[in-house]
Amino acid sequence: MVLNRAAHPRARNEKMIIVLKPHSTKEQIDHILERIEELGFKAHVSQGELRTIIGVIGDENKLQAEPLAAIPGVEQVLPILKPFKLASREFHENDSVIKLNGVRIGGGALGMIAGPCAVESEEILDEIARKVKAAGANILRGGAFKPRTSPYSFQGLGEEGLKILRAVGDRYQMPVVTEVMNPRQIDLVCQYADMLQIGARNMQNFDLLKEVGQTNKPVFLKRAMSATVKDLLMSAEYIMAAGNHQVVLCERGVRSFEDSTRNMLDMSAVPNVKVQSHLPIIVDPSHATGRPDLIPAMARAAVAAGADGVHIEVHSCPEKALSDGPQALLPDQYASLMTELKQLAEVMHRVIDH
Amino acid sequence: MVLNRAAHPRARNEKMIIVLKPHSTKEQIDHILERIEELGFKAHVSQGELRTIIGVIGDENKLQAEPLAAIPGVEQVLPILKPFKLASREFHENDSVIKLNGVRIGGGALGMIAGPCAVESEEILDEIARKVKAAGANILRGGAFKPRTSPYSFQGLGEEGLKILRAVGDRYQMPVVTEVMNPRQIDLVCQYADMLQIGARNMQNFDLLKEVGQTNKPVFLKRAMSATVKDLLMSAEYIMAAGNHQVVLCERGVRSFEDSTRNMLDMSAVPNVKVQSHLPIIVDPSHATGRPDLIPAMARAAVAAGADGVHIEVHSCPEKALSDGPQALLPDQYASLMTELKQLAEVMHRVIDH
Amino acid sequence: MVLNRAAHPRARNEKMIIVLKPHSTKEQIDHILERIEELGFKAHVSQGELRTIIGVIGDENKLQAEPLAAIPGVEQVLPILKPFKLASREFHENDSVIKLNGVRIGGGALGMIAGPCAVESEEILDEIARKVKAAGANILRGGAFKPRTSPYSFQGLGEEGLKILRAVGDRYQMPVVTEVMNPRQIDLVCQYADMLQIGARNMQNFDLLKEVGQTNKPVFLKRAMSATVKDLLMSAEYIMAAGNHQVVLCERGVRSFEDSTRNMLDMSAVPNVKVQSHLPIIVDPSHATGRPDLIPAMARAAVAAGADGVHIEVHSCPEKALSDGPQALLPDQYASLMTELKQLAEVMHRVIDH
Amino acid sequence: MVLNRAAHPRARNEKMIIVLKPHSTKEQIDHILERIEELGFKAHVSQGELRTIIGVIGDENKLQAEPLAAIPGVEQVLPILKPFKLASREFHENDSVIKLNGVRIGGGALGMIAGPCAVESEEILDEIARKVKAAGANILRGGAFKPRTSPYSFQGLGEEGLKILRAVGDRYQMPVVTEVMNPRQIDLVCQYADMLQIGARNMQNFDLLKEVGQTNKPVFLKRAMSATVKDLLMSAEYIMAAGNHQVVLCERGVRSFEDSTRNMLDMSAVPNVKVQSHLPIIVDPSHATGRPDLIPAMARAAVAAGADGVHIEVHSCPEKALSDGPQALLPDQYASLMTELKQLAEVMHRVIDH
Repeated sequence: MVLNRAAHPRARNEKMIIVLKPHSTKEQIDHILERIEELGFKAHVSQGELRTIIGVIGDENKLQAEPLAAIPGVEQVLPILKPFKLASREFHENDSVIKLNGVRIGGGALGMIAGPCAVESEEILDEIARKVKAAGANILRGGAFKPRTSPYSFQGLGEEGLKILRAVGDRYQMPVVTEVMNPRQIDLVCQYADMLQIGARNMQNFDLLKEVGQTNKPVFLKRAMSATVKDLLMSAEYIMAAGNHQVVLCERGVRSFEDSTRNMLDMSAVPNVKVQSHLPIIVDPSHATGRPDLIPAMARAAVAAGADGVHIEVHSCPEKALSDGPQALLPDQYASLMTELKQLAEVMHRVIDH
Repeated sequence: MVLNRAAHPRARNEKMIIVLKPHSTKEQIDHILERIEELGFKAHVSQGELRTIIGVIGDENKLQAEPLAAIPGVEQVLPILKPFKLASREFHENDSVIKLNGVRIGGGALGMIAGPCAVESEEILDEIARKVKAAGANILRGGAFKPRTSPYSFQGLGEEGLKILRAVGDRYQMPVVTEVMNPRQIDLVCQYADMLQIGARNMQNFDLLKEVGQTNKPVFLKRAMSATVKDLLMSAEYIMAAGNHQVVLCERGVRSFEDSTRNMLDMSAVPNVKVQSHLPIIVDPSHATGRPDLIPAMARAAVAAGADGVHIEVHSCPEKALSDGPQALLPDQYASLMTELKQLAEVMHRVIDH
Repeated sequence: MVLNRAAHPRARNEKMIIVLKPHSTKEQIDHILERIEELGFKAHVSQGELRTIIGVIGDENKLQAEPLAAIPGVEQVLPILKPFKLASREFHENDSVIKLNGVRIGGGALGMIAGPCAVESEEILDEIARKVKAAGANILRGGAFKPRTSPYSFQGLGEEGLKILRAVGDRYQMPVVTEVMNPRQIDLVCQYADMLQIGARNMQNFDLLKEVGQTNKPVFLKRAMSATVKDLLMSAEYIMAAGNHQVVLCERGVRSFEDSTRNMLDMSAVPNVKVQSHLPIIVDPSHATGRPDLIPAMARAAVAAGADGVHIEVHSCPEKALSDGPQALLPDQYASLMTELKQLAEVMHRVIDH
Repeated sequence: MVLNRAAHPRARNEKMIIVLKPHSTKEQIDHILERIEELGFKAHVSQGELRTIIGVIGDENKLQAEPLAAIPGVEQVLPILKPFKLASREFHENDSVIKLNGVRIGGGALGMIAGPCAVESEEILDEIARKVKAAGANILRGGAFKPRTSPYSFQGLGEEGLKILRAVGDRYQMPVVTEVMNPRQIDLVCQYADMLQIGARNMQNFDLLKEVGQTNKPVFLKRAMSATVKDLLMSAEYIMAAGNHQVVLCERGVRSFEDSTRNMLDMSAVPNVKVQSHLPIIVDPSHATGRPDLIPAMARAAVAAGADGVHIEVHSCPEKALSDGPQALLPDQYASLMTELKQLAEVMHRVIDH
């Protein structure tokens, strides 16, 4: 039997705590202890008036994998370990810095990603790129393969879009990022892109994560709409466990009951990631709010919160955009915003490479 | 430029309503009217004391695709059309019935799916299948490719697992369902499975949906953790638009703030789907609750709510299961539950094929 | 200094677990141990390779009250005790049965509560009461004080409404339940009602809970829109700690991202409450779904899930109702539904008192 | 019949849109038109291929109050009006500025509220007040009546706490804010406090809102855990409709599935409120995150997002605090944070009164 899981980078002896149900019987306790021994762990029993608690010491990987909670009499199993390793601050103490040609993301350098939702034509993309570059953006975005909720919506230009993106990026000396949705597209997209985007809807498409983990391109990993910060870091771990440590995280809002914004931007994910992980994290207020009138305030807040960059959709004519027009900023609005962001970046001691 | 979206089954002339911001100027209104005309739609203006409203009539597909909300002065665009067609009751009035060999799902027939989370060995699967079959289950499940949140967890036996599943299914005359996670696996899985499962984490993996939409196998589509009922039906629409109309939906709980269950089972999704769609819907209380002590009540509720079946994880030794042990029912617990479910099925005028 | 909290029914010696941050210093550990000793607890230290864990044994009330998590070096404190007592199954093993005159709720008896959202006039209420009584309802509801999200909406008839409710309830020999929103109203409402309703928006209005806890009327406590099951039971504990043990819980849907229903009915709350608590729980599909087309399926599911009753809004002319008309069933629809519910009640071995 | 709702400040003729179900009959349409006429509204019918749409024009208050959605054949009613008036930007174009003695909140002035969760003793409060004042705080907070989820937790010192708060506030020339939970406490609290806090759990305790709306004290209204921004503004409207226009809103996090923070801070509520309302809004990162390691980043983000102040819990010895110790900042941490916030305030052109 082949267990094709990734090998843990390093296994440690650690502890897990099993809380038994009230009034558990001696037979139940004995069975649990037997099972623990059988698995090669050590047990330490401690009895309260009402509940018995068992500390279990053993190899952390096995501890996490075993379904101890399924043993009769067990009320809960309290894990005391973070389930991710390579993505953790404990594994890599300093901030990771990801480089796209000369542009750094992380470690004090801000990745200012801008561009249209979808690549529509070279003419339109050229105009947008020229203007966002002039405003201070240092990475160009644009989708060639588009994940749309309706099969009847525009699905992207495919390879033609990739070619346009590459050409325009080169023209303005901007590295480019674009989404890959299907393992079959990875080779193709790698020929054109400087960074591969994994969209929110594919954050737990584990086969896709494993395959981009085998490339040598940085990966821009967007948080799924219902992913916890831990889930996001576990998805980063998938990519890293496959060999590719160049991961840039992206907070782009989560689903909530609030119906006046497209999603709810979880700004606290920025410092929350930073205390747990060395990976850079960028904020995308465009998808998070879906509202141009809220994007500037959220972009400012992201820089002040310590994000490693801001991702903003810009379109020169939102009312004619083939995808997500209503949430795009106009180039002029983007330029005004960048003026504010540069001031804040200075207060926060951040630099923006070009 | 190739717009590789699916062609709508039938386009109708319909209406959409544009609400302008208070005090919008004559210039803004004129620009909107021009834009509407340019797109080939008809406009009907109606003025309140504070706000102007414009009704737009035109081809529904174009109406849905155009970013009218991005036009300056527009406060909101009120869509009055359901965005799915093939999945709708309006397209197909009677309940769809999906057949797996002799076993029907839908139209009054319940699909009783049972089995372990993962296929672990022929011996274990045989024991489980024998017992759930005896209890009344009519479809066998078991994962060969497992979407696990950690790369260090058991990832499934792959093709070896598919072979075991097929062999055991044949032995007990049960059609089998198993998950496919990667477009590259579809051909392989089709050789062994009677129904292809799309897991919750891949519900909006649109490339995967398109590709299973090109097979002739029924698809078991699980609701994503943050998908609305509309999103679920849109994902079904993707499969159907690619040519495969055999879709069985599955409610398996959504993410919520409640922390004492794994997810929150949205039982109202059952009648909610039924008023909008002809597709069958099955409830999975195992993943929805994650708690064996709550599964029986939720399975009963599902049948009473009008679900077209129940999907339950059963393992003969949950404490040794390689995946999701803590939420599995024992074969005996499953048998007791099936006794209750058969009584309720009778009251609800439902049959269970064998 | 007066700590005006309620005295715990019985204090036990129990255990709590403190997990320290990785690489915590000897000084930090010593300080924690000192602090634990100072509080009169006993500590048991256990060291893993990476993390130190301290088991703390002591009086459970003090353990829960002390902010051990605030001590420097502490990563998390793992509580292993349920924070409610009087509401727990451990305190009272058998189901509690609440009696309103001759009508029982709990212990196998279903409370079938029906009536309009608001009391509007004696004529309208009489017609509704007559019809729901004939259909099998055994408790009449109707609001005299209405919690409306807008100050410009109908706020209820006040005492005039209470008088009408009492008169009509007496006429049809139905006990009556109505909401109380303000501590100043409690005496007045107690003169007319057989059961006091605490609305979802007041579930954590702790002063109101304490004051209804000092009456001798049963309390119908509705779950708040963002309350966990534990929060709901803690609010019941407030009422019980003040002396009134007659509490009937109500699941009425929680807030979620799903936008096609008013709230999301958490049906699993029914068995979830039952494993933890002896208190009866009733399901309100009217507020949970807000949609008459979904109410019957959800009412059936509630009975099958083991709920102790169903709460349904009925109005003889929903389109003229002063409050929540769009979610009311017509008397005829209610009568059809009751026919189904009686069949399910029989399968579930439940009785409906009259 | 007395409808004790507040009179709308001004009623306008406005429009509402009724979308009928597909294939609605002529009888249904006629009945709807009759009903609309009966209510004194004007109707305008417009027919699509599949659906009929009716525009209804009439007095906005009546339009909002009538249950048009309950008329048979109606699929949905699309409201096009904001349900709040006095709180809206349309009612009052410029930012409202609330004054507590010499300290302004709003209109470019930041309210820097700091203090312990609960008033515990004069000695402790004095130390905290002295330090936060020195660091730049301009308003002192401290609870005398505490809403605790457990009846067995410390419930506050009551009037003794109010006296201490007043004395310490006067000593350091800081206006004071404290929570009121019960209509019966309002007179008492008004004797001591400069601003009345309505806690998140009472945001829709409408009777309490009405009664603080009759005082002349500014009200600090915290967003409920499951309130939308619209709900928050409707609760402000309750206070304002009762005559008191001095309302300061507070974003303090909402419930979500993310389990590593206490709540999820909805930072976008800041600009979202500002586009709709003239009322000031303050951010409380202490309750929103529950984690001292995330509070500084979120406070910085709040100022950059345009909030009118920051509310932070500070305690000189969190590990001995009687309430919410684990989320308090130490006075030194608060002082460092204030240094950063002052820099950001300058970039944002904000002042901090003293």
